[in-house]
Amino acid sequence: MSIDPTSIIDFEKGGGLVAAIAQDETTGEILMVAYMNEESLRLTLEKREVVYWTRSRQKLWHKGEESGNVQKLKGMYVDCDGDAIVLKVEQVGGAACHTGKRNCFFRRIDAGEIEDVGLQVFDPDEVYGK
Amino acid sequence: MSIDPTSIIDFEKGGGLVAAIAQDETTGEILMVAYMNEESLRLTLEKREVVYWTRSRQKLWHKGEESGNVQKLKGMYVDCDGDAIVLKVEQVGGAACHTGKRNCFFRRIDAGEIEDVGLQVFDPDEVYGK
Repeated sequence: MSIDPTSIIDFEKGGGLVAAIAQDETTGEILMVAYMNEESLRLTLEKREVVYWTRSRQKLWHKGEESGNVQKLKGMYVDCDGDAIVLKVEQVGGAACHTGKRNCFFRRIDAGEIEDVGLQVFDPDEVYGK
Repeated sequence: MSIDPTSIIDFEKGGGLVAAIAQDETTGEILMVAYMNEESLRLTLEKREVVYWTRSRQKLWHKGEESGNVQKLKGMYVDCDGDAIVLKVEQVGGAACHTGKRNCFFRRIDAGEIEDVGLQVFDPDEVYGK
């Protein structure tokens, strides 16, 4: 029996959006967190490359469309209450963050301290131009 | 120099909340996604146990307060644009999900298919009562 996967996802709770976490399928590293609406989720399943919805630019965002660093979809998982998605991906280019870091979570914070623990993979000025 | 960690977090973008992803610090498994407001983030850093803000119940939520399955904080990371947090945790009891599964992302979805791939750790009726 064919089931519509979006039927188990609760888009209403987050005003039409669900949080989507991209995780490197081999290392388990959390690369980034963004959001998806229903259309971006359908497109991701169709293309097998990740398409988000950007909250700041209010549009569909085919990750890597400019830099070439697309995320190839290897698996999609929805959580117990249907308002978050984990995307197992192969990150082309080895860096998910627009800063050129491997992942977006390069700032470790603690009471009174912020430390940059990121690994720089590319120079964003070269990739995106000025 | 002492810095307020919340100064680099953008609570406004998400209406006072940021997404918080709990990741098992040893296996890298993504356990769950929930939300934090500024108070819950401060409490988490103070207690060294994770405190979320529940959107459905609209209150602070010290994870594990009822079941005993608290999340011990091992590290906190903020992303490039300050609207998401990764929490490296030790999950007491071995299960993060209220269903008794190890993690909340136990439903693999694909075009036309939904598959339960979760590992049951406890019986929720026994832990939470009826």
